[in-house]
Amino acid sequence: MSNEKPILYTFYRSSCAWRVRTCLNWKGIDCEHRYVSLYKGEQKEEKYSEVNPYKTVPTLKIDGLVLTQSIPILEYLEETRPDKPLLPKEPDKRALVRTLVQAIAGDIQPIQNLRVLQQVESLGGDKNEWSKHFVTIGFEGVEKQLEKTSGKYCVGDEVTLADVCLLPQVYNATMRFGVDMKKFPRIQLIADNLNKLDAFKNAHPDNQGDYVKKS
Amino acid sequence: MSNEKPILYTFYRSSCAWRVRTCLNWKGIDCEHRYVSLYKGEQKEEKYSEVNPYKTVPTLKIDGLVLTQSIPILEYLEETRPDKPLLPKEPDKRALVRTLVQAIAGDIQPIQNLRVLQQVESLGGDKNEWSKHFVTIGFEGVEKQLEKTSGKYCVGDEVTLADVCLLPQVYNATMRFGVDMKKFPRIQLIADNLNKLDAFKNAHPDNQGDYVKKS
Repeated sequence: MSNEKPILYTFYRSSCAWRVRTCLNWKGIDCEHRYVSLYKGEQKEEKYSEVNPYKTVPTLKIDGLVLTQSIPILEYLEETRPDKPLLPKEPDKRALVRTLVQAIAGDIQPIQNLRVLQQVESLGGDKNEWSKHFVTIGFEGVEKQLEKTSGKYCVGDEVTLADVCLLPQVYNATMRFGVDMKKFPRIQLIADNLNKLDAFKNAHPDNQGDYVKKS
Repeated sequence: MSNEKPILYTFYRSSCAWRVRTCLNWKGIDCEHRYVSLYKGEQKEEKYSEVNPYKTVPTLKIDGLVLTQSIPILEYLEETRPDKPLLPKEPDKRALVRTLVQAIAGDIQPIQNLRVLQQVESLGGDKNEWSKHFVTIGFEGVEKQLEKTSGKYCVGDEVTLADVCLLPQVYNATMRFGVDMKKFPRIQLIADNLNKLDAFKNAHPDNQGDYVKKS
């Protein structure tokens, strides 16, 4: 392992980068931030795509490795820094956590990310209506699972990777797409609980060095 | 753990169900198949959504649990049935495998699944052009990662979860969307190698009990 300080390539408004920022905060891993503006398309520049072939944020340089894709980064941090765990020990509970992670990171977020919305607009579609539609469908499934699994947080009363993924998605749903959260009382309650925790607050877009006020 | 025979809710053409079929075959887990036709919208029927709140396939009933979402199911099978492993032991290699898994299961597949394509059509878009665009962008990243990691398969010469996810995506790319695979020689070579393996062949859509010949 390398002793160099980890470097996170991040963009304040990326929900995928937000997940990794939260996990780093939660585990107390000190990290240098380098900013990649998705608004300016900096992720497509050659300098960055040499670091990250997927031309996405985040990228994490840690332990002499260059890691891309947020979920694998979270799993790696969990495996190599098991203190302050974000996955339960029991395989059945781990599966519940990962199901929520994937429902958000697989079914919901990819369909409302910037490059998809640009394509929706090029077809003459309304990007907010599109996003609202898919986030709402996705949240219906999440809410139904939470009826069975949630306590103070997504799976019982311990913070897990499911929570790390949920909060950025709630932010997108409410601040960007106007999703009616009255239909999702459990999701909203958990989001309210998470918003009180320092690791989550400090990872919030408004608290990033590259934050830009934008409508 | 329950000793009952596992039940997989599957649809022959679902790439997510295909991933789980491959893993079950690979690990030699005998399993009953129940068919859920996405073409007929059976995943939205109440009877099924009580089993799977996300109204998606696959669902796996195993060990007295009801598991949904393909990637968490693969991780669960790996944790509880570690023989014939599909993840390496070393965290850095596990991260490489999971990065490819997520690039496919997060960045590519969700954007070309049935419910998204129906929405694209309702905007007057061409669903094949849409899919081709996003699969091509996604494969560019995958191909670039494979330049560094691949041997006979995605990560070295052992079959991993990355391969389990790659083959169904190559099928979609070629059989459904007409993606030009000449641009992706490593992906194509790995797919050719995987197509020779029984676990993959037996999981192929054409070899399923609910297979329907369709243009």
